[in-house]
Amino acid sequence: MEDILNLRYALDTFYFLVSGALVMWMAAGFAMLEAGLVRSKNTAEILTKNVALFAIACIMYMLMGYNIMYPADGNGYFPSLDLSFMFGGDNDPAEVLAQDPAAWYDGSYYSGMSDFFFQVVFVATAMSIVSGSVAERMKLWSFLVFAVVMTGFIYPMQGYWKWGGGFLDELGFSDFAGSGVVHLCGASAALAGVLLLGARKGKYGKNGEIRAIPGANLPLATLGTFILWLGWFGFNGGSELIVSNVGEANAVAAVFVNTNMAAAGGVIAALLTARAVFGKADLTMALNGALAGLVAITAEPLAPSPIWATLVGVIGGVIVVFSIITMDKLRVDDPVGAISVHGVVGMWGLLAVPLSNGDATFGAQLAGLFTILIWTFVVSFIVWLILKVTMGIRVSEEEEYEGVDIGECGLEAYPEFVGSRGAA
Amino acid sequence: MEDILNLRYALDTFYFLVSGALVMWMAAGFAMLEAGLVRSKNTAEILTKNVALFAIACIMYMLMGYNIMYPADGNGYFPSLDLSFMFGGDNDPAEVLAQDPAAWYDGSYYSGMSDFFFQVVFVATAMSIVSGSVAERMKLWSFLVFAVVMTGFIYPMQGYWKWGGGFLDELGFSDFAGSGVVHLCGASAALAGVLLLGARKGKYGKNGEIRAIPGANLPLATLGTFILWLGWFGFNGGSELIVSNVGEANAVAAVFVNTNMAAAGGVIAALLTARAVFGKADLTMALNGALAGLVAITAEPLAPSPIWATLVGVIGGVIVVFSIITMDKLRVDDPVGAISVHGVVGMWGLLAVPLSNGDATFGAQLAGLFTILIWTFVVSFIVWLILKVTMGIRVSEEEEYEGVDIGECGLEAYPEFVGSRGAA
Amino acid sequence: MEDILNLRYALDTFYFLVSGALVMWMAAGFAMLEAGLVRSKNTAEILTKNVALFAIACIMYMLMGYNIMYPADGNGYFPSLDLSFMFGGDNDPAEVLAQDPAAWYDGSYYSGMSDFFFQVVFVATAMSIVSGSVAERMKLWSFLVFAVVMTGFIYPMQGYWKWGGGFLDELGFSDFAGSGVVHLCGASAALAGVLLLGARKGKYGKNGEIRAIPGANLPLATLGTFILWLGWFGFNGGSELIVSNVGEANAVAAVFVNTNMAAAGGVIAALLTARAVFGKADLTMALNGALAGLVAITAEPLAPSPIWATLVGVIGGVIVVFSIITMDKLRVDDPVGAISVHGVVGMWGLLAVPLSNGDATFGAQLAGLFTILIWTFVVSFIVWLILKVTMGIRVSEEEEYEGVDIGECGLEAYPEFVGSRGAA
Repeated sequence: MEDILNLRYALDTFYFLVSGALVMWMAAGFAMLEAGLVRSKNTAEILTKNVALFAIACIMYMLMGYNIMYPADGNGYFPSLDLSFMFGGDNDPAEVLAQDPAAWYDGSYYSGMSDFFFQVVFVATAMSIVSGSVAERMKLWSFLVFAVVMTGFIYPMQGYWKWGGGFLDELGFSDFAGSGVVHLCGASAALAGVLLLGARKGKYGKNGEIRAIPGANLPLATLGTFILWLGWFGFNGGSELIVSNVGEANAVAAVFVNTNMAAAGGVIAALLTARAVFGKADLTMALNGALAGLVAITAEPLAPSPIWATLVGVIGGVIVVFSIITMDKLRVDDPVGAISVHGVVGMWGLLAVPLSNGDATFGAQLAGLFTILIWTFVVSFIVWLILKVTMGIRVSEEEEYEGVDIGECGLEAYPEFVGSRGAA
Repeated sequence: MEDILNLRYALDTFYFLVSGALVMWMAAGFAMLEAGLVRSKNTAEILTKNVALFAIACIMYMLMGYNIMYPADGNGYFPSLDLSFMFGGDNDPAEVLAQDPAAWYDGSYYSGMSDFFFQVVFVATAMSIVSGSVAERMKLWSFLVFAVVMTGFIYPMQGYWKWGGGFLDELGFSDFAGSGVVHLCGASAALAGVLLLGARKGKYGKNGEIRAIPGANLPLATLGTFILWLGWFGFNGGSELIVSNVGEANAVAAVFVNTNMAAAGGVIAALLTARAVFGKADLTMALNGALAGLVAITAEPLAPSPIWATLVGVIGGVIVVFSIITMDKLRVDDPVGAISVHGVVGMWGLLAVPLSNGDATFGAQLAGLFTILIWTFVVSFIVWLILKVTMGIRVSEEEEYEGVDIGECGLEAYPEFVGSRGAA
Repeated sequence: MEDILNLRYALDTFYFLVSGALVMWMAAGFAMLEAGLVRSKNTAEILTKNVALFAIACIMYMLMGYNIMYPADGNGYFPSLDLSFMFGGDNDPAEVLAQDPAAWYDGSYYSGMSDFFFQVVFVATAMSIVSGSVAERMKLWSFLVFAVVMTGFIYPMQGYWKWGGGFLDELGFSDFAGSGVVHLCGASAALAGVLLLGARKGKYGKNGEIRAIPGANLPLATLGTFILWLGWFGFNGGSELIVSNVGEANAVAAVFVNTNMAAAGGVIAALLTARAVFGKADLTMALNGALAGLVAITAEPLAPSPIWATLVGVIGGVIVVFSIITMDKLRVDDPVGAISVHGVVGMWGLLAVPLSNGDATFGAQLAGLFTILIWTFVVSFIVWLILKVTMGIRVSEEEEYEGVDIGECGLEAYPEFVGSRGAA
C-alpha cells in the first residue's frame, strides 16, 4: 500500500507541477499579446512591466499572499496572518504514508511546494490582465507599486473567500479555475486604474469620434494568444487538483477538451460577429474571441459536454466583440480589450455555471461576482488614487507622445525598424 | 490490483493529455512559420487563417470527424455514421477497473476524452499544412469553407482506413504517427488547391525566370520551426499510446530520441545541400531540413536505432532541398515549401519504414501512399473546384498587389514598420 | 510488486522525457534571445547558428559525447572510449523488474534512452551560450566546426569529471544541474572565442568611449527569456532524476519553486540596480537579471528555502549588471552579455552552494570552478586558435559592415522592414 501511496502522491504532484509550468508560460503569452497590441514606441515598457510584475507576484505571494489566501485558520472573512511559507517545508513522507487510505484525498496527497507553485502563477495571471488595460500611458514604477499591493493583498483576500474556504465558498459560490477569482478580479483592478488614468491622447475626439490605434505587431499578438491557449490547459486542467485514478483522470481529460472547445467556439463566433459588424475578418477580434472562450469556460470546464462547452465559448466570443465596441463608446480606453475579455466575459462564465452544473445557483454566483467585483474595484481604486496623488500614475504628455519606452526604459523595442509611417 | 489499474489509467491518460497539449502547440508553430515566410502585407491574413482553421478543425472533428475516423462499426471502407461524441461521456470507472488485467490494453486503459483531445489536434496539423501552400493569394472565406470539409470529412475518411481499423490497416500499411495520414494528406490537399489557384503574380516570369519572394520575418519562421520540433515530441511520442510499463516507457523514450535525431540530421543535411547548391548557409533551407527530418521519421520513429533515425532525417533533408527547387521549376508555387516538406518527404518517410521495421512491406506502404494521395487529391480537387466556380478561390489582382491583409482582414500586421523597401 | 515497479519506471521515465522536452525548448529561447539582441543585419545568421548548433550537438553527443561523459569505465580522469550509443538499446524489462526493490534506485529505474534525451539537450544549452558572445562578427562555418569539438569532446570531458563520476565528483564538488558543468563551461568557451575574435567594429572608440549597440527586436529577446525561464523547470527539475515517491516528489517541487523564486529575485534586483546606475528601467537588464537568477540557483536548487533561493537570485541579479558594465570597460565585447550571465554568475552559483547545503565545501567548489574554467578555456582557446590560422574566424570588414546575413546566409532576416534608421 505504501508503494501505491508513494506513486499516487508523486503522480498528483508531477501533474500539478506540469500544470503550473503551463500557467507560468501564460506570463509569456500576456507579454507577447500586449507587446503586439500596443504601438512600437510603447513596446519595451509593456514588456518590462510584464516581466517585472511576474517577479513581483512571485515574491509578494511568497512573502504574504499565499498565507493570506490559504491560511491555517480564519473566520471566513478574515484569514489569520502567518508569514511562514517563505521558510519552506513540505509534507513529511512518513506522515503522508501513514494516512488512512480511505481519507487520503482529505489529507496531504500532493506536495505543498507544488501547490504554492501552481497558485503563484495564478496571481501573476490576474496581474497581467491589468498591465494591458493601462498600457501606453501609465507610469512604470507606479504600476509596479500597485502590483505589490494587488499580488500581496487584494487578490489573496478575495481568493481566500472562495478557494481558501472563506464565506463565498460556504455560500456555494462555484468558480472552478477562476473566471471570477482570477479574471474578473484582474479586470476589476484594471477598470479602476483606467478610470483614474483616462484615455490615451488622441483616442477620443472632441466630436465623439473614436480613433483606432492599431497594434504594432500582430504576429506577436497571435503568438501570445496561442501561448495563453496552451497555458490554459494547465490553468483549468490543473485546477482539478487530482489525476491519479480513473474518475479523476477522466475529469482532467474532460477539462482539457472543454477548454479547447470553448476557445474554438470563441474564435469562430468572434470572427463571424466581427465580419457582420465590420465586414472584415478582424484578426484581433478572432484572438479576443479565443481568449473570451477560454475565460468563459474557466468557471466550469468540467460539467459541460463538448458541445455545451463550445456554446459557452461561442457566447463569450459574441459578447467580447460587443463589449469592446461598447467600452469604446463609453470612452473606457483599454488598448488590449482586457476588461471586456476578462471582466465582462468572466461574468458570463460565472453565470453560465448553473446551466451545466446542478450544484450551482444563480444566487450564489451573483454573490460571488459582486463580492469580487466590488472588493477589487473599490480597494484598487483607493490604491490607484493614493498613487495618483503621491507618485502620479500618468506619464507626461510629452513622454506619451514620444513613447514611454524612451522615457521609462531608456531604450527602444525596435530601434532599427520604424519606417516612414512609424512613430504615429 | 484496483489501485494499480487506477494509476495505470491515470498515467496513460496524463501522458496522452501532455502529448496532446504539445501537438496543439504545433498550431502556433505553423502560424509563426507561415507568418514569417510570407510578405508583411499578407501576414495578418495568414495568421487569421491559422487561428480560424484550428478552431474549425476542433469543431468539425467534434461534430463528425472523430466519429467517422473511429467509428463503433464499419466495413473497412465506409465507417458507420454516429455523431454522438459531442455529447461527451467517458469510460465508466467501475467497468474500467473490472477489466481482466491480462486483457487490460485491449480494453479501456485511458480516458476517451483524452483520446479525442490527442486526435483533434492532429486534424488541425493536417489542415495547417494547406494554409502555407495557398498563402498570399487565396480568399480567406473560401479557404475556411475548405477547412470545414477537410477536417470534417476528407481527413477522417482516410484516417479511418488506417488508424480506425479500415482496409489499409488490414493490408498491413504501417504509419506510426502519420507521415502519410497527416502529412501526405495535408500536402495532397494543398497541391490540389495550388494547381487550381495558380502562382502568385510575379513569381514566374515569361521567359522562365523564377523570382525569389523572401519571407518578411525569419525570426518568426525560426520560432515556428522550434515550436514544431517541440510539438513533435507529443505528435510522435504520444502515438505510442501507452507509457505505463517498462517496455512501453522505453518505447516512448526511443521515439523521443529518434524524433530529435531525425530533425538534427535534416538540419545538417539541408544546410550542407543548400551550401553546395547555392553557396550559402540558407536559413530557410535549414528550417525546412528540420521539418523534413521530422516528417520523415514520423512513419516509424520506434524501430530505428538513433543513428538510423539520423540517416532517415539526413535523406529527408537532402530531398527537401531538391524538391523545393523542382517544384519551382514545375511552377508549382508553394510559398512555404509545404508540399515538399510534408508531401514529398512524407512519401520518403512511408517508404523508409520497411528498412527498419521488419513487419512492414514496400507493397503495403505503396498501397497506403497512393490511397492517401489519390483520395485526398481527388476529393480536395473537386471541393476546391466547386469553391472556385461558386465563391471563387483567388483574390482580385488589385487585392493581391495591395496585400490580402487590408482586403480580407481590414488591418495590417505591422502597421508602423514597412520602410522604404516595404510593400515589395 | 512487478506492477509497482513498472509504474515507477514509467513515471520516472515520463518525468525525464517531459523535463528533456522543456530543456530542448531552451534552444528556441537562446535563438530568440540572441536574435533579439543583435542588429537586424546579423539576425538570420545568428538564427542559423542556433538551429545548426543544436543539430550538431545532438549528432556529436550521440556519436561520441554521451559515451565520453557517462562511460562504462574510466579512471576518474580519462573515461574509457565506447561509441555504442548510436546503435541504441535500452534496459531489458525482465532484468529491470527482477531488480532487488531495496536497491531499485541504484539500478535501472528509468529508460536509458530518456537519459540520453535529457543529457543531449544540456549539451546544446552549453553551446548556445557561445553563439551569443561571438555574434555579429564570427564566421558561421568556423563556429560550427568549433561546435563539433565542443559538443563532442570539450563539454563531455568536464561533464564526466563531475556527473560521470570522475575526480571532481569524488572530491565532493557539488553542482546540482550545472551552474558550472553547463553554464560556466559554455561561458569559458565563449570567453576564449571573444578574446581571439576581438570586438565588433565601432564598439570601442579610440578615446575609451563605449558605444551601445542596441538589439533590434526586444520583444524577441523577452520571449527568449520567458522560454528559458520555462525550460529551466525541466533543466533543474529534471536533474533530481527521480520523482516517484513522496520525498522525491517534494524535492522536485522544491526545485521548481526555488528556480522560479531565484529568477524573480534576479529580475527585481537587476531592474533596481539598473535604475540606480542608469536611471532607467532597462528591459535588457531585467531580462539578464532573470537569467542570472536562474543560472545562480542551478548549482543548488534543492537545499534552499524559497526566501533563500530568492536571495541567491537577487545577488545574481546585482552581479550581472556590474559584470556587464565591467566587461565593457575591459573591452570584452559580448553582444548578449552571456559571459556575465552564465560565467560570472555561474561562479556565484557554485560558491553559494555551501551556504545552504551542508554537504558542500568551498574548497571543493573552488576546485570544480577552476577545473571547469581552465579546462574549457584552454582547450577552447587552442581550438579557436587553430581555426583562426586555418579557416579564419572573423568575417571581412566589409561583410561585418554590410551584415553577416547577406554574406553568410544569402538572405535577410527582415527584408522589408529596415527603415530610415536601419542598417546602423
